[in-house]
Amino acid sequence: MAAKTFVLLDVAAGIHAAPREITPDDVGGAAKGYRIAWNRLRGGTREGVDVLEVDNGSFSFTVVPTRGMGLWRARRDGLTLGWKSPVAGPVHPQFVPVSEPSGLGWLDGFDELLVRCGLENNGAPEFDDETGRLRYPLHGRIANKPAHKVEVSIDPDSGRIVVTGVVDEARFHFLKLRMTSQYATRVAQPGVDIRDEIQNLSALPAEMQMLYHVNFGVPLLDAGSRVVIAAKTLVPRNAHAAKGIDSWDSYAAPQPGFEEQVYFAALKGDAQGRTRTLLKNAHGTRGASLSFDVRQLPCFTIWKDTAALADGYVTGLEPGTNYPNPRTFEGQQGRVVKLAPSATTVLELALEAHTSAPEVEAAEREVAKLQGDSVPVIHRQPLADWCA
Amino acid sequence: MAAKTFVLLDVAAGIHAAPREITPDDVGGAAKGYRIAWNRLRGGTREGVDVLEVDNGSFSFTVVPTRGMGLWRARRDGLTLGWKSPVAGPVHPQFVPVSEPSGLGWLDGFDELLVRCGLENNGAPEFDDETGRLRYPLHGRIANKPAHKVEVSIDPDSGRIVVTGVVDEARFHFLKLRMTSQYATRVAQPGVDIRDEIQNLSALPAEMQMLYHVNFGVPLLDAGSRVVIAAKTLVPRNAHAAKGIDSWDSYAAPQPGFEEQVYFAALKGDAQGRTRTLLKNAHGTRGASLSFDVRQLPCFTIWKDTAALADGYVTGLEPGTNYPNPRTFEGQQGRVVKLAPSATTVLELALEAHTSAPEVEAAEREVAKLQGDSVPVIHRQPLADWCA
Amino acid sequence: MAAKTFVLLDVAAGIHAAPREITPDDVGGAAKGYRIAWNRLRGGTREGVDVLEVDNGSFSFTVVPTRGMGLWRARRDGLTLGWKSPVAGPVHPQFVPVSEPSGLGWLDGFDELLVRCGLENNGAPEFDDETGRLRYPLHGRIANKPAHKVEVSIDPDSGRIVVTGVVDEARFHFLKLRMTSQYATRVAQPGVDIRDEIQNLSALPAEMQMLYHVNFGVPLLDAGSRVVIAAKTLVPRNAHAAKGIDSWDSYAAPQPGFEEQVYFAALKGDAQGRTRTLLKNAHGTRGASLSFDVRQLPCFTIWKDTAALADGYVTGLEPGTNYPNPRTFEGQQGRVVKLAPSATTVLELALEAHTSAPEVEAAEREVAKLQGDSVPVIHRQPLADWCA
Repeated sequence: MAAKTFVLLDVAAGIHAAPREITPDDVGGAAKGYRIAWNRLRGGTREGVDVLEVDNGSFSFTVVPTRGMGLWRARRDGLTLGWKSPVAGPVHPQFVPVSEPSGLGWLDGFDELLVRCGLENNGAPEFDDETGRLRYPLHGRIANKPAHKVEVSIDPDSGRIVVTGVVDEARFHFLKLRMTSQYATRVAQPGVDIRDEIQNLSALPAEMQMLYHVNFGVPLLDAGSRVVIAAKTLVPRNAHAAKGIDSWDSYAAPQPGFEEQVYFAALKGDAQGRTRTLLKNAHGTRGASLSFDVRQLPCFTIWKDTAALADGYVTGLEPGTNYPNPRTFEGQQGRVVKLAPSATTVLELALEAHTSAPEVEAAEREVAKLQGDSVPVIHRQPLADWCA
Repeated sequence: MAAKTFVLLDVAAGIHAAPREITPDDVGGAAKGYRIAWNRLRGGTREGVDVLEVDNGSFSFTVVPTRGMGLWRARRDGLTLGWKSPVAGPVHPQFVPVSEPSGLGWLDGFDELLVRCGLENNGAPEFDDETGRLRYPLHGRIANKPAHKVEVSIDPDSGRIVVTGVVDEARFHFLKLRMTSQYATRVAQPGVDIRDEIQNLSALPAEMQMLYHVNFGVPLLDAGSRVVIAAKTLVPRNAHAAKGIDSWDSYAAPQPGFEEQVYFAALKGDAQGRTRTLLKNAHGTRGASLSFDVRQLPCFTIWKDTAALADGYVTGLEPGTNYPNPRTFEGQQGRVVKLAPSATTVLELALEAHTSAPEVEAAEREVAKLQGDSVPVIHRQPLADWCA
Repeated sequence: MAAKTFVLLDVAAGIHAAPREITPDDVGGAAKGYRIAWNRLRGGTREGVDVLEVDNGSFSFTVVPTRGMGLWRARRDGLTLGWKSPVAGPVHPQFVPVSEPSGLGWLDGFDELLVRCGLENNGAPEFDDETGRLRYPLHGRIANKPAHKVEVSIDPDSGRIVVTGVVDEARFHFLKLRMTSQYATRVAQPGVDIRDEIQNLSALPAEMQMLYHVNFGVPLLDAGSRVVIAAKTLVPRNAHAAKGIDSWDSYAAPQPGFEEQVYFAALKGDAQGRTRTLLKNAHGTRGASLSFDVRQLPCFTIWKDTAALADGYVTGLEPGTNYPNPRTFEGQQGRVVKLAPSATTVLELALEAHTSAPEVEAAEREVAKLQGDSVPVIHRQPLADWCA
């Protein structure tokens, strides 16, 4: 049987489905045990947010079309991936002042497990040298743009579930990009595969950036957690990060007032460019892997923000097309994706939850294999062409 | 029989009608063949936008109360008037950052056939000389203010249909204006008559501006299209427009990267001040006329933006109380409307679609008659008091 | 019988009640004559605003959870407390550009009887000295934050009605405050008691400000109205206010173009710190009292804005933790509330409507008693440490 497709939102076609569930009964076929729920949240700052929950039977996740197809939370075997932000989301874009003169309004919506930062820019806000006015807001606009198309396609026999959403970041006389995001999973898969295709809708060349800001807090992150990567190079972002360079890969307990430390890395991939990064808890009994292609996403950022729980104890593992420096600096370093007229680029990222020591160990062995005998170059101070 | 009135929205009275149609069956009388539909759009950036579609049997148009009573599209005999913006609207104001420090956030909502620019200001954004902060955003605020009253009145016998909407642009301690917009048409009329009454609600004098930004793209606009006006004077806005002065009235094929060219004109009216402007396609088989009173709208702007289709191949014919220069400059030139306390001003504009060569020729003859024997003064360079 | 609680909104629990009424029939018990209505407004700038109307049988008031639990209007015996702003509210936060570079966007939503100004700051907007960018918008953000929890609790026998709403003002890496606001009244009570508990959710110390901007216009405010306070000290805010110092406590008829005059006062309380302020009409037949604790709210501001009715003839009586000067100045003067990690502070304010001469006289006597024999110090010019 062919895959069965359910259109939940199609603005051009005038379709906006009422809240509903999709189960094997709606699809037929051999695959069983999955469930998809489409809902609209109500009240407070989440008023009007559409959410799509996908449960493949062993791994479940929540996609937020209203927030640029972000991934709000994921769950497996009682382990919730995500973090407890001081902002209780998902927050509707109407309550996120991305254009605030400070460039920091984006923070009012920041509570996802995975938030896309882009597409015109990501990273620190940048201001016009001469006028002082905001040019590029923190982490860009895509996370606060609503999808205009959302559909779910399910293969009745294999149980493969693909959520597709389309989000535009377009302004007349400026950048015109279209992102088609897919979340694919399969019955019993312990994770989800993400694939974003970004198209330049314009007849002129364009540049874009993408940073996958993947955020983990409790319970996965704890005192003694470690991030495991196959690194070529690692650089502290600034003098404060440099102070923590000897413990760049381990995490402390929550500490009120902890000032964030950020490290930039270039990772090693296999022959096909594929790499894996792992975050594991202190006991090595739980973890989460991100797998991706270092040719697509050559820049990896580790953000350590182990402040108090109430202030958002969290780490971000952030594969990107660039480092989250101001846009102009990254452009000068060539860390942007150039798109010819009508051209597209594809970015892929797989997320996997590990809920036992053997799983964590297996993931760690994979990273070790990528690292092999090579020794990473750990810079003890920021590099001029890496750090703005 | 008296006209029958349907109140679709009246915030003060707590009325917000559910989606509905109004047909001759609801009205009675001799007039037949019209249809009015009131709907709320869902999903993406159009979430929550109220639209009113009016079809008089041969001409139809879509009014958007949520966007300051803008005119989104019009259709006659298979000809759609409007343009294909890179922004797929109509866009709800919650997704238009008019107050973005750049002053350009308005562009995120720009895709209408007719968008009103005003009422405090229109034209290029203006910044405070000293602080660099935004003072007047591009094209003002009225297009992103929702109507608080919408009603439709239909004469059962003549088939005259009048849509009335009321929009306020008011801020405590600042300008307090109320715009009552009417769209009037009649069964079989090949167009629509627009009438805006703007009232100064304050006990203090006020100033206002209005620019009707009327935008045409494909299929009407094509290589060889021409704009036909009865001009007294025409001035290129800047050096780049000056380069194109010899072909100011004709349009080229879509060209990627075409830099917009803008011309400012003073038009000739008849004894009552009435003038007409025509845009026709290359073959002279289709066109659109705007008719208005040059005493109400003395400034006419031609905006040529014949970039690639994907980037918004479009021209704007823009009758206004002023030219779209920064607000302070226009004020210095006296191109603002002064309103005494409680006073009102009326602005009128008729739109007509032409769908045959004879109709286009008739419209062109009317413009020729207005021009008569007089020769327009075509300036080859910008004028200091016309161009900021 | 125990109080009966109705949860109308609880975002965390996924509860958003449909429009409904609560009457004694829903509660049982001896108390009769009250009525509570929960509604969502539609259309214009009030689209999506939740309102809660409470009528205790003799005094009624409207709470707006969507606008930071503001108090929109109150009514007793045909007397409506509130004012006629040029902005017709209640306005949904999506239409209030608090982050506008000017810092004045807050004004687009300003029409309540009582609007809370805070919690990070209140008062005049403040800009960064070096960059000119907005740091603190006029009167802060809390009034444009929606409640995420709203419930009503009713004691069946005493007829005590308590509305509780919870609003967060939180940004990752910045301030994280939670305000739990209560409006308590009782069958036949001629007013309402307000109690706000503000908690610092962070593990770091925080500072906050609150100003209760309580606004009265017609019919209570008229030519000859007087404000009656027990003052220790009163200071004109600026030179313009200084010109009116001899009539600081009386109001003139509406006058187009009247420039606002503001006075700052320190009030006398009783042994428990309790004070009362009264606004009464010219004939002394109607009035409104605010009662509060000068230890909680040591700064009292009188805002006289007796412009034309159309421009918002209004006075604000404003108990606060500070005077509405720019945030940095007030911080330097120590007029902020410091909150230890997880600590809370409580602010209380009672509003009472007087609808007869004897009631007004009784209130006036209470103020006189507080004043006693002491003579207030009326400064004729601004003081450097009171006025920025």
